[in-house]
Amino acid sequence: MSIIKHLLIGSPLSTHLLQEKRLNKIRALAAFSPDALSSIAYANQEIFLGLVVAGSAGLSLSWPIGLAITGLLVLVAFSYYQTIQGYPTGGGSYVVARRNLGTLPGVIAASALLIGYILTAAVSLTAGVAAIASAFPALWAHRIILALLFLLLITLLNLRGLRETGTLMAIPVYFFLFSYLSMLVYGVVRAFIEGPGDLSSTFPITTQTVNTVLVLRTFAAGCTALTGIEAISNGIPAFHPPEAPNARKTLAVMAILMGILFVGSIGLTQFMAVVPGAQETVLSALAHRLLGSGFAYYIIQASTMLILVVAANTSFAGFPRLAAILAADNFLPHQMTNLGDRLVFNNGILALSFVTGILIIVFGGDTHALIPLFAVGVFLAFTLSQAGMVVHWWRVRGKLWIFKSFVNGLGAIATLVAVIIIAGSKFVEGAWITILLIPLLIFILYNIRAHYRGVAQQLSMDSVSLKEPIHLQPRLVIPISGVHRGVIDAVNFACSISQDVTAVYIELEDGAGERIRQRWLQYWPNLPLAIVPSPYRSIINPLLNYLDEADRQHADGQLSVLVLPEFVPAHWWQGLLHNQTAWLIKAALLYRRRHQGFQRVIIDVPFHLQR
Amino acid sequence: MSIIKHLLIGSPLSTHLLQEKRLNKIRALAAFSPDALSSIAYANQEIFLGLVVAGSAGLSLSWPIGLAITGLLVLVAFSYYQTIQGYPTGGGSYVVARRNLGTLPGVIAASALLIGYILTAAVSLTAGVAAIASAFPALWAHRIILALLFLLLITLLNLRGLRETGTLMAIPVYFFLFSYLSMLVYGVVRAFIEGPGDLSSTFPITTQTVNTVLVLRTFAAGCTALTGIEAISNGIPAFHPPEAPNARKTLAVMAILMGILFVGSIGLTQFMAVVPGAQETVLSALAHRLLGSGFAYYIIQASTMLILVVAANTSFAGFPRLAAILAADNFLPHQMTNLGDRLVFNNGILALSFVTGILIIVFGGDTHALIPLFAVGVFLAFTLSQAGMVVHWWRVRGKLWIFKSFVNGLGAIATLVAVIIIAGSKFVEGAWITILLIPLLIFILYNIRAHYRGVAQQLSMDSVSLKEPIHLQPRLVIPISGVHRGVIDAVNFACSISQDVTAVYIELEDGAGERIRQRWLQYWPNLPLAIVPSPYRSIINPLLNYLDEADRQHADGQLSVLVLPEFVPAHWWQGLLHNQTAWLIKAALLYRRRHQGFQRVIIDVPFHLQR
Repeated sequence: MSIIKHLLIGSPLSTHLLQEKRLNKIRALAAFSPDALSSIAYANQEIFLGLVVAGSAGLSLSWPIGLAITGLLVLVAFSYYQTIQGYPTGGGSYVVARRNLGTLPGVIAASALLIGYILTAAVSLTAGVAAIASAFPALWAHRIILALLFLLLITLLNLRGLRETGTLMAIPVYFFLFSYLSMLVYGVVRAFIEGPGDLSSTFPITTQTVNTVLVLRTFAAGCTALTGIEAISNGIPAFHPPEAPNARKTLAVMAILMGILFVGSIGLTQFMAVVPGAQETVLSALAHRLLGSGFAYYIIQASTMLILVVAANTSFAGFPRLAAILAADNFLPHQMTNLGDRLVFNNGILALSFVTGILIIVFGGDTHALIPLFAVGVFLAFTLSQAGMVVHWWRVRGKLWIFKSFVNGLGAIATLVAVIIIAGSKFVEGAWITILLIPLLIFILYNIRAHYRGVAQQLSMDSVSLKEPIHLQPRLVIPISGVHRGVIDAVNFACSISQDVTAVYIELEDGAGERIRQRWLQYWPNLPLAIVPSPYRSIINPLLNYLDEADRQHADGQLSVLVLPEFVPAHWWQGLLHNQTAWLIKAALLYRRRHQGFQRVIIDVPFHLQR
Repeated sequence: MSIIKHLLIGSPLSTHLLQEKRLNKIRALAAFSPDALSSIAYANQEIFLGLVVAGSAGLSLSWPIGLAITGLLVLVAFSYYQTIQGYPTGGGSYVVARRNLGTLPGVIAASALLIGYILTAAVSLTAGVAAIASAFPALWAHRIILALLFLLLITLLNLRGLRETGTLMAIPVYFFLFSYLSMLVYGVVRAFIEGPGDLSSTFPITTQTVNTVLVLRTFAAGCTALTGIEAISNGIPAFHPPEAPNARKTLAVMAILMGILFVGSIGLTQFMAVVPGAQETVLSALAHRLLGSGFAYYIIQASTMLILVVAANTSFAGFPRLAAILAADNFLPHQMTNLGDRLVFNNGILALSFVTGILIIVFGGDTHALIPLFAVGVFLAFTLSQAGMVVHWWRVRGKLWIFKSFVNGLGAIATLVAVIIIAGSKFVEGAWITILLIPLLIFILYNIRAHYRGVAQQLSMDSVSLKEPIHLQPRLVIPISGVHRGVIDAVNFACSISQDVTAVYIELEDGAGERIRQRWLQYWPNLPLAIVPSPYRSIINPLLNYLDEADRQHADGQLSVLVLPEFVPAHWWQGLLHNQTAWLIKAALLYRRRHQGFQRVIIDVPFHLQR
C-alpha cells in the first residue's frame, strides 16, 4: 500500500515548504486563464446546437447573439477589474458576498461556486474528449472512459502537488492561443478572398422556427463563454508586486483574448456557413473547413483538448481552496483543511474528483447534457459578487465611488438577468438540478456549522470548575472467552491498577460455564469469576446487562471499567477467522443509544499472535 | 435497523428450542427429495441440447442415453441404500470419506460438496425461472433478476428459520409428483393411440454428426439427473424410529420415482418427436404438446418452477450444516458454527446466498452455462463416499460384507468413470472451473486449520507458569488535541490509577504548542505536558515515536499505557465531521507490523456528545 502511494503521490513534504511562488504577468495569464479561454469550445457548440433546430434562419442569428454575449463579457470583465481594486488581497465571490451582504448571501455564493467548480471540471473534460473524438471518430464510443481517465490523471497530478502556477501548465495555454489565433487570422483572410458561404443550401430541414424562446435559450447556453472570468480576482496574492495593478492588466488582456477568440470563431463559422456532422464539434468543423484534414487540423484539435484538460485542472486548484476556507469557517467538515503529504488539500481534491466522476458517468460523458446545469451557478455567484461590490463601494466611498458602484451595479443587474434567462429557458433541461442543489447545499452547510458550534459549546472549559476529584478505586470487569494465554496480560494489568477485579464469562451452552470455572480456579483462585447465561446466544447484551446491574448494586457513583483481552492476528486475513467480539463490545458500549450519557472506560489489553 | 431485522427475520429464539422434529416417511420424502426429483428438469434439457446439434439422428439417441443414466441411477441408489445401513446415524460424503479414507479424501469430498451445494442452488433457481419463462416468454429477458429475487426470498425464509422439514415444503413436492405423474400417464395413453411422431420432418438442419464425443458429452450432461440422490443418507436422524429402515424405504421410493419421471419424460419426448423453440425448455414443449396451452399446461410449469425453488432450498439446509461441521473441525471460520437469532447457521446461509447470487449474475442466469461446472463436483463426492463405504465394509466385516463391498465398489467405479467422462467432455465448457476450484478450496481449508492450530498452541496454558507479577505503577500518556472538556475525564481516570501521568500534544503548526501549554497550566499546573512537533503533519507517527522513546528512556521493563480521550458523536453522520484520530491511533497501535510483539495497553475514555 504505502509503496504504491509513494510511487503515485511522492514522498511527504515538510510544512515549511508551504509558500506560494510569485508569478509574472505572462505566467499568471497561463495560470488563471485556461478555464476562461477554453470556454469558447463549449459555448460555440451550444450556440450552434441551440440555433440549428431552426435551420439557416436560426444559424444566421449566431453572430448577433455572439455579439450580445461579448457585450456581457466586457461588462463582467470591467466589474471584476473593479473587484481587484476593491479587494487587492483577493476577493472570491464567497468573501466579497459574505463581507458585504451577510452570511447567507455568502453561503449562497459559496454553494453556487462549489457546484460551478464541479461542473467546470466535468464540462471541460467531456468537451476535451469531444475535441479529440472529432478528430478520431473511433474514440466517440469511449467518451466516458476517456473522460474518466483524464480525470484520474488530473487527480493524481494534483495529489502529487501539481500547481496551476507551474511551467507545465503554461505550455498548453500558449500553444492553444498561438494555434487558434493563427487559424483565425488565416480564416479572416480566406473569408475576405472567398466571400460568404451559403447556409441555406446546406440546410433544408428545420424543426422549429425562430422565436423569442429559441433566442433566449441560445443566449443562455452561450453565456457559458464567460465562465472562468472571475479566476484572476481570486488569485491576486500570487502576482508579482504591485499585485493589484498587475492582476488588473492581466485581466484586461485575458478579456480581450476571450473576446477575439469568441467573436472570431463564431463570426467565421457563420460567414463561411460551416455546419458540423453528428459526431463532430462545430469548432472541429471550422478547423476542417479552413485547414483540411492535414497536420494543421490535428494540431488545432490537440490544442483544444489540452487547454480543456488544463481548464478542468483549475477546478482542482479552486475547489479544494474554497472548501478549506469554508471548513475553516465551520461550514464544511474540518478534514477539508487537512494538508496532505504533498501540502495540498487532499480531501477536497478527492471529493471533487469523486463527484465529477459521478457526473461524467450519469450524464454519459455528454457536454451538451451537462451545460444546462452549469451556467446557473456561475452567474448566481457573479451576481452576488457584483452586488457585494456595490455595497463595498458605498461603504468605502473614496474617489469615483458612485461611478464604480454604477459599473458593478450594472454588472450585477446584467448577470442577474442572465441568471433568470438561464434558469427559465434551461429549467426543464437540467437547470432545475442546480436550482434544487443550491438550497440543499446551503442547508447542509448551515447544519454542519450548527453541529460544530454545538460541539464547541459542549467542549468549552468556560463554565467548568475543576474540583479535585475523589479517586475511588475503579471496579474492573474482565470478560473472558476461555482460560488461555490471551487473558493473562489482561488479568495482570487489571490487578496492577485496582484491587476490585472480576472476570465474567458469558455462557452460550449449558454446562460450559462450570468447566471454565474449574480451569479458572486452577490459575486464579483468588479472583472472582461470574458466569452469565445467555439463552439467546448473544454475547453483547448479557454483558451490558451484567455491567448495568453491577453498577446498580454498588451505587458508588462510578461505572465498572471494562478490561478487554483483545486478540490481534498477525495478518489481516486472519481477522476473518475470528469472531471480532472485542470490537463488537467496544462498538456497543460507545455507540448504542441506550448507553448515551454512560461514559464507560474501556481498557484494551492486546494479545498479539505471532503467526 | 433492528426493526427491519425484526420484521424480516423475526424475534430471537432460545437455544432450548433447538431440537429436530422427527419425520414420518411421507414428510421425509418431501423433505429430502426435491433436489433429486427436480433434476429431471435440467437433465432432460441438457440431453436435448447435447443431441439436437446432430438433428433427428442425434435426438433418436436420447432414449438409450436416458436408459444408461437410469442404470447408473439404480446402481448409485443401491450404493446409498447400503450407506444408510453402514452409517445409521447419518453418513454424509465428508464423514464417510474422512473416517474410512483419511483426512485428505474427506476434505476433497467436502470441497466437492460445498461447490455442489452452491451449484445446486444456482442451477435449480435458473431452471425454475426457465420453467416459468417458458410459459410467459415476456419473462425471458428478466431471468437474472427473477432468479435473484427467488434467491433473496429463500435466503430470508432460511434466516427466519424455515426448516426443510416443514409442511410448507411438502406441498410443492406432492403437487409436482401428482401433476407430473398424471401427465406422464396421460401421455403414455395418447402415445399408444397416436403412434410415434416423426422427428426427421421437423429437423432439416444439423451442424454435427453423431459420434462418440457427442454421445459422451450428452451422457455427462445427463448425469445431472442423479444430483440430490445422496440427501437421505445425510439426514437419517430426522426420521421416525427405526430410523435406518425408514430411511432405506424412503430412498427406494425416491429412486423409483426419479426413474419413472426421467425415463417417462425422456421416452415420451422422443416417441412424440417433441422439439422446443429457442425460448422454451424441452419439458415445457412436451407439456404443450400433451396439454395444449390451457390451464393444465400452466399447472405443470408452475409445479416445475415450485419444486425447483424448493430444490434450491435444500442447498440452504445442507450447505450451512456442512460448513458448520467443517468449522467445528477447524477447516472453515469458526463463525460458521454460530447459531443466529433463529437457531440457524446465519453465516453459512449468507455465504451460500452471496456466492450463488454471483454465479447467477456471472453466468447470465443461464442453466445450460452452469451445468458443465455442476456434475464434476457431485460425482467426485459420490465416488469418494462409495470408495469410503468399500473400506468401511472391509473394516466392519459382518454379514454379506463381500457382496456389500462389491456393490459399493461398483458404485464407486461407475461414478468415477462418470467423473472422468464429465471432466473430459465438459472441460472446455466450464468443468475446468470446478476442477481448478476444488484444489484451491482444499488449499484454503488446510490453511485455515493450520492457522487455528497455531492459535491454539499460542493460547495454550500448558507451558505457562503463573508467577506473581511485580506490579509496577503504569506509566500513562494522554494525547490531547486541545484543552477542552473532552480531556477532563481522561485526566481524572488516569490520575485515579497512577501517579505517573504525562499529557502529550502533537504540534502541527509552529506556535500552537505554546498556546496549548499556557491553557494547560491554567487547569493542570502539576501534570507535565510534552509538545511534540510534527513537520509532516502526521499525528500518528510522532506519537508512536514519542512512546517508543519514552519506553527506551525509562527502561523499566514496561510499556507506556495510552489513555485516549475519545469523542463519541450523538449521531453516526456527525462522525463524518471529525477526524477519527482516536480510532486511527488504536488501529496503528494494534495493527502496524513494527509494533508486533509490543502489546501496548490502551485505555479509552469516551466523551459523549449529547447532540
